Amino acid sequence: MITDQRFSRFGETPEAELPSDIKDIYDQNNGKIGFVPNVFRAYSRRPEHFRAFMHYHDVLMRGPSGLSRAEREAIVVAVSSENRCQYCMTAHGAALRVIGKDPILAEQIANNWRTADLSPRLRQILTFASRVNEPAFAATDEEIDALRVAGFSDEDIWDIAAVAAFFGLSNRMAGLMDMRPNPEFYVMGRPQG
Amino acid sequence: MITDQRFSRFGETPEAELPSDIKDIYDQNNGKIGFVPNVFRAYSRRPEHFRAFMHYHDVLMRGPSGLSRAEREAIVVAVSSENRCQYCMTAHGAALRVIGKDPILAEQIANNWRTADLSPRLRQILTFASRVNEPAFAATDEEIDALRVAGFSDEDIWDIAAVAAFFGLSNRMAGLMDMRPNPEFYVMGRPQG
Amino acid sequence: MITDQRFSRFGETPEAELPSDIKDIYDQNNGKIGFVPNVFRAYSRRPEHFRAFMHYHDVLMRGPSGLSRAEREAIVVAVSSENRCQYCMTAHGAALRVIGKDPILAEQIANNWRTADLSPRLRQILTFASRVNEPAFAATDEEIDALRVAGFSDEDIWDIAAVAAFFGLSNRMAGLMDMRPNPEFYVMGRPQG
Amino acid sequence: MITDQRFSRFGETPEAELPSDIKDIYDQNNGKIGFVPNVFRAYSRRPEHFRAFMHYHDVLMRGPSGLSRAEREAIVVAVSSENRCQYCMTAHGAALRVIGKDPILAEQIANNWRTADLSPRLRQILTFASRVNEPAFAATDEEIDALRVAGFSDEDIWDIAAVAAFFGLSNRMAGLMDMRPNPEFYVMGRPQG
Amino acid sequence: MITDQRFSRFGETPEAELPSDIKDIYDQNNGKIGFVPNVFRAYSRRPEHFRAFMHYHDVLMRGPSGLSRAEREAIVVAVSSENRCQYCMTAHGAALRVIGKDPILAEQIANNWRTADLSPRLRQILTFASRVNEPAFAATDEEIDALRVAGFSDEDIWDIAAVAAFFGLSNRMAGLMDMRPNPEFYVMGRPQG
Amino acid sequence: MITDQRFSRFGETPEAELPSDIKDIYDQNNGKIGFVPNVFRAYSRRPEHFRAFMHYHDVLMRGPSGLSRAEREAIVVAVSSENRCQYCMTAHGAALRVIGKDPILAEQIANNWRTADLSPRLRQILTFASRVNEPAFAATDEEIDALRVAGFSDEDIWDIAAVAAFFGLSNRMAGLMDMRPNPEFYVMGRPQG
Repeated sequence: MITDQRFSRFGETPEAELPSDIKDIYDQNNGKIGFVPNVFRAYSRRPEHFRAFMHYHDVLMRGPSGLSRAEREAIVVAVSSENRCQYCMTAHGAALRVIGKDPILAEQIANNWRTADLSPRLRQILTFASRVNEPAFAATDEEIDALRVAGFSDEDIWDIAAVAAFFGLSNRMAGLMDMRPNPEFYVMGRPQG
Repeated sequence: MITDQRFSRFGETPEAELPSDIKDIYDQNNGKIGFVPNVFRAYSRRPEHFRAFMHYHDVLMRGPSGLSRAEREAIVVAVSSENRCQYCMTAHGAALRVIGKDPILAEQIANNWRTADLSPRLRQILTFASRVNEPAFAATDEEIDALRVAGFSDEDIWDIAAVAAFFGLSNRMAGLMDMRPNPEFYVMGRPQG
Repeated sequence: MITDQRFSRFGETPEAELPSDIKDIYDQNNGKIGFVPNVFRAYSRRPEHFRAFMHYHDVLMRGPSGLSRAEREAIVVAVSSENRCQYCMTAHGAALRVIGKDPILAEQIANNWRTADLSPRLRQILTFASRVNEPAFAATDEEIDALRVAGFSDEDIWDIAAVAAFFGLSNRMAGLMDMRPNPEFYVMGRPQG
Repeated sequence: MITDQRFSRFGETPEAELPSDIKDIYDQNNGKIGFVPNVFRAYSRRPEHFRAFMHYHDVLMRGPSGLSRAEREAIVVAVSSENRCQYCMTAHGAALRVIGKDPILAEQIANNWRTADLSPRLRQILTFASRVNEPAFAATDEEIDALRVAGFSDEDIWDIAAVAAFFGLSNRMAGLMDMRPNPEFYVMGRPQG
Repeated sequence: MITDQRFSRFGETPEAELPSDIKDIYDQNNGKIGFVPNVFRAYSRRPEHFRAFMHYHDVLMRGPSGLSRAEREAIVVAVSSENRCQYCMTAHGAALRVIGKDPILAEQIANNWRTADLSPRLRQILTFASRVNEPAFAATDEEIDALRVAGFSDEDIWDIAAVAAFFGLSNRMAGLMDMRPNPEFYVMGRPQG
Repeated sequence: MITDQRFSRFGETPEAELPSDIKDIYDQNNGKIGFVPNVFRAYSRRPEHFRAFMHYHDVLMRGPSGLSRAEREAIVVAVSSENRCQYCMTAHGAALRVIGKDPILAEQIANNWRTADLSPRLRQILTFASRVNEPAFAATDEEIDALRVAGFSDEDIWDIAAVAAFFGLSNRMAGLMDMRPNPEFYVMGRPQG
C-alpha cells in the first residue's frame, strides 16, 4: 500500500483550482482508465509546463508515424529502463503490456531489451533508440544508412530518436520530482496466472 | 508465447538420464510449484556443477542467517537488476513477490532499488549489496563499522556480501547460457488488479 | 568555409511551402539577427514537431522564471558541453555571450563549467543542472533541501532541471540530424580583441 | 614483514575448534606447501560456507575439463587483475607461476592480459573470460559460435565462464574480508635471478 | 575582466629574480605576441621543471615532423577538450585559430572533434590521438598498420602519439595549478564578424 | 623465454650509429645494472626525443624533492598499474623493490595501491597521484589545502602531480611502441623465498 505516500516531491494544484483544459484531461483519464496518472498531477503545479510537455508527448506518441503505438511504447520502456526511471518503467510498462498485447515481452524489455525476444524490426528500433540515449550521441551516416536499407523512412528514424530523446527528458523530470507510479499501473495488463 | 524457444543455449540432460538426486529435485519442484525452473534444466547438463552450484545457493538462501529470506531475495533482485540479468530478475522477482508479500515493493526493487520505498534497514542492506557488486569492491573499515553500528552482526554483513557475490556469479552463468525464464514466473505472486 | 555543406542530415521544407506560422518565425529571425538559425530549418521538415519543440523551448527559455535568461543560457551551454553537442555549444554559446555580457565567462562554461569563474549562485545552478544530465538522475531530498536553503524556490529548482532536461533532448535531436551551426554564430558576441 | 597484521577482517575459528574435515584440509596444505593459505583461515569462521565455497572451487579448478589447470589459473589471474583483488592476484599469481611453468608470462597476465605474450588459444580463453567478467554480461550467439569454430567444446566454453564467474565471487569475498596474502605466496615459483 | 584573479595556484618567480634564459623567453613572448602566456609564469616557480617541460614541448611542437604545425595544434586542442582542460583549450584554441587559418574548424575541434568538418587525413590523426588519450592505451598492430597504409610514416605515428601524450601531461599540470588563460587568448585569431 | 621477441614496435638505432651522449647512457646502464633497459633502446630511434624525455624524467625522478626516491617510484608503479602499462609496471616495479627495500609492499602497490599496506603518508601521496591520473583532473582548493595541512609543501604537491602526469605520458609511449620489459626486470629485487 503506497497510497498515503507523496506522489511527487513538489505537490500539485488542487483540482478545484485547475484550469479547465487540464481539468478536462483529468476527466478523460478518470473516464478511460479510472484514475489520473500521477504525472498529470505532478505537472499540474505548472500549467504552462503541463501543456507544453503533454502536447509534445502527444505529437510523438499519438501523432501519425510509421512506428506503431506499441513500437513507440517499447522505445519508452527500453530507454526508461536504461535510465532506471521508477515512474516511467511502471507507467509505460503497463501501457506496453496493454497496447502491445504481449505482457511477457513487455517485461523482458523492461528488464533488458538486449536479451528480450525481439523481432528483427523491433531490435533495430531499440538498438537505435539506445544509441540516441547515449550522452554524447551523434548519429553516423553509416547507422542512418543501415536503417534506411532496413526499410525505415527518414520520418521513422526521426520518430525513434524523438521518442527516445523525449523520454530522456521525461525520465529526468520524474527523477527531479521523485514521481511515484499510481498503484493501478502495477496490475494493468498483467498476464493471467 | 515463448514455450517453443530454447530455455538455455546448451540444452539439458534428458530427464530419463538424470542422476537420482537431481531427479528428486525436479520432483520436489514439480510438487511444490508445478514446474521445474529452467536454471535446474540448464545446469543438468553438468551434474557435478549442478550440485556444487545448488548446494552453495541453498547454504546462502536457505541456511541460518540474521537476514530474513525476503531480505535475501531482495539482495538477489537488486543485484540482478544492476547486472540486467533477464533470468534472475524474472525468477527471483517472482520469489520476492511471494516471500516478501509486497509485490509493489518487489517491482520497485527490480526497477531501481535506489528509488524504491525501502525501510531504513533494507536500504542499508541493498546499499552494501550494491557496493559488493562493484567490479573492484574492497570494503573499507568505515563502511563495515557503520553497518555494525546499525545493528548488523559480522555474520549478517558476510551474508549480505555472499548473497550479492553469489548472484554476480549466477547472473553471469545465466548470461552465458542465455537462460530464459519459465513463463510461470511472470505471473507468480502478482498483485490482484 | 562551410556554407556549401548540409546544415542538417534530413533537409528542410522549402520556404515557399512553409506553413505561415513557421514562415513568420523565419521572418522574425531574419529581422532580428539577420539569418534563420539552422535548428528552425531542420525542424521545418516536420511542422507539428517544430511547433511542439519550439513552444516547449519558449516556455522554458523565455517564460516567467526566477532564473535570469543568462542563467538559463548558461545551463544550456554547460549541459550541451557535457553532451558534446556541436550545434548547441555554438548557437547557445553565442546566445550566452550576447545575453550574459561576459564572453570570457561564456567560453569558460563552454570549455568546462567546473573550472569556470562562476559566482556561487551560478555554481549551484550548474552543479544541479549537471546532476540532472546524468543518465539515471533521481534527486535526493538532501540536494533539494540544500538548494532551498541556498534560496532557490521550488519553481527555480524545477526550471533548472527542466532546462537541463530539455536540452538533453535538443542535443540528441541535433546529433540525430548532424545539425550544423550557421557561420554567423561563431562571431556573435565575441570580445573585441 | 606483514605477519603481525590481520589476515582477514573477521578473524578465524581457532584450530582446536575446527571441524575435522576442515582440519584435514589444513593438514594437507601444511604437508604440501608448508602453510595454510589465508583464504582457508578466513572461511573457517563459517564452516558451512567454507565447504560450499571450496567444493565448488574444486569442481571448477580440479575437476575434469578440456582446459588445462594452467589455463584455468590464467583465467583466475586475469579476472582477479581486472577486479584488482589483492589476495587472488598474489595467491593465484603464485599458483600460475608454479603450474604454468612460465613465471614471466604469469606476471604479464597479472599486469595486463591484453598485452601479455599469449598463445592464440590462451588469448581466446582470456578474451572470453574478460567478457564474462563484465557486469551485464550476456553472451551473443556470434561469440559462442566463434569459440566453437576455434575448437572449444560447449563444456570448455562453460568452464571458461564458470571459472571467471566463480572468481568474480571469490574476489568480492576477499574484498569483503580484506583478506591478505600469506607472505609465502610472494616468492613461490619466482624465476631465478 | 579576470586580470585580478590568480593565474596559477602556486604563484610565480618575480621577474627580477628569473634566470636569464627564462627572462629571455619572457622577452621573446612580449616581443612576438605582446604578453607572457601564463603557463610560463606558472612554471617559473621551478626553473628546472620549466626548462625540461618547455624543451620537450618545443621538440614536439616545433621540431621537424611529417605533421604540420596546424595538425599538431589540432591534436593539442582535441586532447585538451577530451580532458576538459580550461587553460589548454583556450591557449591552444587560439594557436590553432592563428596557425590553422580556419577559426571555425578550430572551434569545432574544441567543441567535439568527432563531429567537426575534418579532412580524412586530420580525422585519422585525431582518431589515433584520441586513442592514445585513453587511460589504458596500448596500440594494436592492426591500427598501426592502418595508419601506415593511409600514408603515415612510423615517425608521423610516433609524433601523433607523443603530442597527445605530452598534452595529457600538460593538461594535468594545468589542472594541478588551476592555471588560468590570459585574457588575450580569448580574442586571438577570431573570425571577423 | 621472450628474448627473441621484439622489444619495441619501431625498432632502434643500431648501437654503432648512436650519438655519443646516448651511447654513454647505454654504457652507464651496462656498468650499473648489466643491461640496457628497453625504454632506452626504443627511444634511441629518435635522439632528440630520447634526450627531452630522459632529461624531464631525470629532473622528476632524480632531482631535489621533498619526496624520497622510493615515494616517487611508488607513484610510478601505482599510476602505471591504473593505466595497465606492461613495461612500466615491470621495470618500475623492479625499481621500487630495489629502492624501497620492501618487495612485498612493492607488489601490493602494483596489484592495487588502494588495498596495499601503506603508511598514512604514502596513502596520501598515492591518493593524490591517482586523482592526477584521472582524465579531467582539476585539483580543488580543498584537496590542496588538505595536503598542506598534512605537511606537504607546495613543491611536494607539485612533485607528486608531475611524476604522476609524466608517467601518464610514459605509459602511453610504451603503449604506442608495444614496449616489452627486459627479462632481467622480472627478477630484480625479489624477496628471497
